[in-house]
Amino acid sequence: MKDSQKKIAYMDHAAATPVKGPVLKAMLPYFDRDFANPSTVYDLGFQVKRVVEEQRAKVAELIGADPEEIIFTSSGAEANNLAIKGTIFSRFKKAKRIIVSAIEHHSVLNSARFFERLDYEVTFLPVDKYGLVDPERLKKTLDQDTALVSIMHGNNEVGTIEPIRELATVCREHGVPFHTDAVATIGSVEIDVHEMDVDLLSLSGPPLGAPKGIGALYFRKNTRLMPLIHGGIQERGRRGGTENVPGIVGLGKAAELAKSSMKKRAAHLTQLRDTLIANVLEKIPHAYLTGHRERRLPGHASFCIEAIEGEALIFMLSRNGIYVNTGSACASKALKTSPVLVALGIPAALAQGSVVFSLEETNTLDDIDHVMKHLPTVVERLRAMSPIWKNGAPVANMA
Amino acid sequence: MKDSQKKIAYMDHAAATPVKGPVLKAMLPYFDRDFANPSTVYDLGFQVKRVVEEQRAKVAELIGADPEEIIFTSSGAEANNLAIKGTIFSRFKKAKRIIVSAIEHHSVLNSARFFERLDYEVTFLPVDKYGLVDPERLKKTLDQDTALVSIMHGNNEVGTIEPIRELATVCREHGVPFHTDAVATIGSVEIDVHEMDVDLLSLSGPPLGAPKGIGALYFRKNTRLMPLIHGGIQERGRRGGTENVPGIVGLGKAAELAKSSMKKRAAHLTQLRDTLIANVLEKIPHAYLTGHRERRLPGHASFCIEAIEGEALIFMLSRNGIYVNTGSACASKALKTSPVLVALGIPAALAQGSVVFSLEETNTLDDIDHVMKHLPTVVERLRAMSPIWKNGAPVANMA
Repeated sequence: MKDSQKKIAYMDHAAATPVKGPVLKAMLPYFDRDFANPSTVYDLGFQVKRVVEEQRAKVAELIGADPEEIIFTSSGAEANNLAIKGTIFSRFKKAKRIIVSAIEHHSVLNSARFFERLDYEVTFLPVDKYGLVDPERLKKTLDQDTALVSIMHGNNEVGTIEPIRELATVCREHGVPFHTDAVATIGSVEIDVHEMDVDLLSLSGPPLGAPKGIGALYFRKNTRLMPLIHGGIQERGRRGGTENVPGIVGLGKAAELAKSSMKKRAAHLTQLRDTLIANVLEKIPHAYLTGHRERRLPGHASFCIEAIEGEALIFMLSRNGIYVNTGSACASKALKTSPVLVALGIPAALAQGSVVFSLEETNTLDDIDHVMKHLPTVVERLRAMSPIWKNGAPVANMA
Repeated sequence: MKDSQKKIAYMDHAAATPVKGPVLKAMLPYFDRDFANPSTVYDLGFQVKRVVEEQRAKVAELIGADPEEIIFTSSGAEANNLAIKGTIFSRFKKAKRIIVSAIEHHSVLNSARFFERLDYEVTFLPVDKYGLVDPERLKKTLDQDTALVSIMHGNNEVGTIEPIRELATVCREHGVPFHTDAVATIGSVEIDVHEMDVDLLSLSGPPLGAPKGIGALYFRKNTRLMPLIHGGIQERGRRGGTENVPGIVGLGKAAELAKSSMKKRAAHLTQLRDTLIANVLEKIPHAYLTGHRERRLPGHASFCIEAIEGEALIFMLSRNGIYVNTGSACASKALKTSPVLVALGIPAALAQGSVVFSLEETNTLDDIDHVMKHLPTVVERLRAMSPIWKNGAPVANMA
């Protein structure tokens, strides 16, 4: 994405990130050379099967799981759907309540809400102004009728990392299965499923530098799980359809790279993030950090900027080669106010000015300089056109 | 899969087939260059979105559909699950019967049977000795309580092509949604969804030379469909998860190639198939063709060979560089007798000797010579070890 004429600072890695060179290289033979179906009984298939199992072990190792606790899926969204629907359908109507946080990804929220039609009740746990779920609150909300609790590890819109271990412990004490969506944290935050004490954990390939179209679900041994995609014997009968071998190889290679580089990567991202946050808060008046200051994703900086419309900001930044987001790439474009920001108690008008930077190890301090060269000007220009901005301040302070 | 020392005749293309050169070439830029998320609002994402929509149009064109009637999935199995579960859940419990043929793919059979736990009744329509479903029989079986009928277009185990148009017409007259699994026929049999008059049709990438991990579902405009993978706005809200852009580009390119080469390809495959069938029936005593002689997949030849164990046959053929299958690659290895062959009325003992050749345009008459050079010897050797074979004939004729 470099071109000789224009400096590019791509900082929307939560939405998409390029496949890493060594990952793509590892995948290539499996498209047209080692193409056999791993379920076949002859040597060509058996060799591919062995490769698939090697990747399963690598993914398991990244999160401290056993290989047989990993199911490959086509995305983090599928993993979330499998975790929720697979758990609920495996003991259908034995307990009829699902608890999720108010700031879950759409794939979790909408999977849970799907069961409302089947006479389930979905409880949305509130978060505080930093986006944190309170374990005490969960404890009070849990009851005998709860079939599943799902609370994300990290939030891609405000960057906050939830106290998963504490939340999972509450569920363990009550014998209620606990799922966490780790798509935002995988590869940049240390994950150990035993340390966290979770029953189910979703992850996705792209945040690790693997391609779109691959993800995985960790499910603790003896967890009951109905397949989401019924089919043959693939994934030990838990997910039908021929294995996406090149994708699986990509995920395995990416997991291996993530394992070895995590500490260095997290340190680099944290430095960039803190520099960016300090700069934006210093140089843009009436800009506010969203999410928690410390308990946040290493490469994540998110703000609400007053008297700004997020999409207009993103559009103008992109014309200067700066690529960022205004919330989640998966959210409805029609949905003007982010439910996540609303859940944090941010006023609707201020929430319009949401801007999210998600960094990768390829980003540099130079990228941040580039942002700081353009962001103040762009904000000023947009505010000059805003009906709710006058004389360098909001008409009514909404923060 | 060529090597200089050993002649390879790979004839298990229904299980897996190499990605075509031009398909892989088309995909490559979307892994690391044009990697943006198509749901983003800036130029990089918008360009990718446009590419995704171009592929949707190509897939639609291959089957005579409109682009907005195509949902990209991760496999044919996912498309089958989406068709069945999406239809049933969209009007949950309004009608409580699902009709499928007795020879459907596991992803259809097991999706339907999943609803048995939810108080649905699944009716398995019998087939005749060729594997054909009788439209009159369907007519008699259909009732007011039928929510969906699913009958495959072509069967990968016995090669038979079903009279879809006639079956769909019966359903149309009764106002019951009709789904067909076209994974076995896509690219080698002409498909026009309007001509066939189906409401839902599943297809898969690999049979077209696209990679594993991509498929699609056609759903007729105004068909009610609950997502299988809930999530954001992707696929117009019908399938969550970031689009598998490289896979989608691969499927689009493969669909384009299939459209232009279908006639020539089908003619080539039919010639090979007929040569193979004639040779096997002539040179292997007590070998029987399974499925219909004429109404069958162009590249498909399947047999039951008496006093032979299919897996042993496949193993020994593979040692001579011949790769074939014994039924479906997705079926349980523990399942000794194929339910498809049983449904055709083939005795269990004879069904053990199932062998399936699935050819591609890369196969040649030379491959068939190679098969005929080894198959008779291998069969003879296996029979020599068989307790149910004596003096050149089965101990008791079971056919």
